[in-house]
Amino acid sequence: MSAMLHTIELIGVLAFACSGLIEARRKRMDWVGVFTVAFIAAFGGGTLRDLLLDRRPLFWVENQEYPIILFILTLIAVPMLRRLRQIMTDKVLDWADAIGLGLFSVNGTSMAMEAGMPVFVCVMMGVITGIFGGVLRDIICNEIPMVFRRSQLYATCAFAGCWIYLAGHYVELPEVVSLLAGILSTFILRILAIRFDWKLPA
Amino acid sequence: MSAMLHTIELIGVLAFACSGLIEARRKRMDWVGVFTVAFIAAFGGGTLRDLLLDRRPLFWVENQEYPIILFILTLIAVPMLRRLRQIMTDKVLDWADAIGLGLFSVNGTSMAMEAGMPVFVCVMMGVITGIFGGVLRDIICNEIPMVFRRSQLYATCAFAGCWIYLAGHYVELPEVVSLLAGILSTFILRILAIRFDWKLPA
Amino acid sequence: MSAMLHTIELIGVLAFACSGLIEARRKRMDWVGVFTVAFIAAFGGGTLRDLLLDRRPLFWVENQEYPIILFILTLIAVPMLRRLRQIMTDKVLDWADAIGLGLFSVNGTSMAMEAGMPVFVCVMMGVITGIFGGVLRDIICNEIPMVFRRSQLYATCAFAGCWIYLAGHYVELPEVVSLLAGILSTFILRILAIRFDWKLPA
Repeated sequence: MSAMLHTIELIGVLAFACSGLIEARRKRMDWVGVFTVAFIAAFGGGTLRDLLLDRRPLFWVENQEYPIILFILTLIAVPMLRRLRQIMTDKVLDWADAIGLGLFSVNGTSMAMEAGMPVFVCVMMGVITGIFGGVLRDIICNEIPMVFRRSQLYATCAFAGCWIYLAGHYVELPEVVSLLAGILSTFILRILAIRFDWKLPA
Repeated sequence: MSAMLHTIELIGVLAFACSGLIEARRKRMDWVGVFTVAFIAAFGGGTLRDLLLDRRPLFWVENQEYPIILFILTLIAVPMLRRLRQIMTDKVLDWADAIGLGLFSVNGTSMAMEAGMPVFVCVMMGVITGIFGGVLRDIICNEIPMVFRRSQLYATCAFAGCWIYLAGHYVELPEVVSLLAGILSTFILRILAIRFDWKLPA
Repeated sequence: MSAMLHTIELIGVLAFACSGLIEARRKRMDWVGVFTVAFIAAFGGGTLRDLLLDRRPLFWVENQEYPIILFILTLIAVPMLRRLRQIMTDKVLDWADAIGLGLFSVNGTSMAMEAGMPVFVCVMMGVITGIFGGVLRDIICNEIPMVFRRSQLYATCAFAGCWIYLAGHYVELPEVVSLLAGILSTFILRILAIRFDWKLPA
């Protein structure tokens, strides 16, 4: 179980990192910029959550292998980014990103609950964990954050997923079932939103 | 007394949130963006202060009703923003914002003093609390922060108000008198600065 | 020894502050903007490090004289910035900045080690301390951070210097020798990178 969660988490981290990598390259950054933006896209949301909840060690300090993997990945990926883009099509990226969104959001909510936060704050912490990596990535790249522009539902999926997780938690389902329900519903909502072009009203 | 302070605080929070709401709509953000920018404008300064002073729970976690009110307000306000702008004229917004500026700055200074910070740092913490919500709002909206552009005195009013509060504190006036003196002087200075177009020299 | 380190540190702080001062003036900010950007350029990296490591008091709270010196310096410098630029040529600025980069990076690594961080994280904390003042300065000025654009090696020099310090530490050289080796190698690498226009490959 734990190994499975770890694998899912790594997929999420790598998906978020890829979004940073691609964005940084589009802005013609050099290797340092690419690594930093990928790093912030992958770990920014979790770091902000840890700062707000006063959790230490930080997520990427506790799992030192994550930044190291990311470091090596960037070393390898930058020279062959064009080829990488043939494997990592937009569809693959969207799916991996949706997995990351679900996992990080629901995980953030669960950590906020453990820290004894009130319920609405727990959901906000979850959404922050899920989306702020991307927000910080876009701020560094000098763009208005993608999630705030009128595009297909993103934060809203995380918001719904976190409530579903909490609902499961309050009716005392086994924790793993609640977690999976939250992650899966975020994931499915996000995929549907992309598929059917669901947007928030103007 | 405490109820009065709470009411003033809520006015300040709502004024700052409105500035975020209007700015986010101008950038054509969707609902998620509007809420997030309003949230950051309202709570960003206080959150940064709490992080720097290592205070927990955070300001908006302790008062869970604030983010909930803001959430509901955004739900209501976005569809009727045009009508809202007729009630909330620039003048109303300026006055409410000046109240928020005074309250948050002086409050921030007082919290820094309680945390045992040295005196100049206390003033800086106050000004940070007062202005950084707006700074973060503008950064997310991809603008150079309004307070740093050559416009009517803003941070300077907060700076003066924080010193006035501290002066009252050191001559051992009753705390509530010092607080009110600081808040009021910030407020009056800001209103005068708008009225007579006071700016810093170039 | 400690007095020497303090002097070097002050040179670093002032060099970083100058970069903020010049950048803020270029963006036509008023006095408040100039001071804030200079402040963030000088103390932003160290503050982020202190937040991530949960160190209190913060660097510039412990040394209250630093923000006060910066405050007075800004008061004096802004009206005579043109004359200042004749003394502070690009070359002087580059040298002072390289000293600051070396000192802050190696110092950040050493603090992370004291806090018991794993080794790769220590190096990252060092580089963050060295470069994030400049990154935050550029974000506030609404630019893509200079260190991420393809220019002469900067973060890379800090990265190398931090490893050299750590190497010295692990072969149990006297601490002061390791520190100086790290700082000097960062400094020399950076000066060479400017002199010979070394860049990262595209």
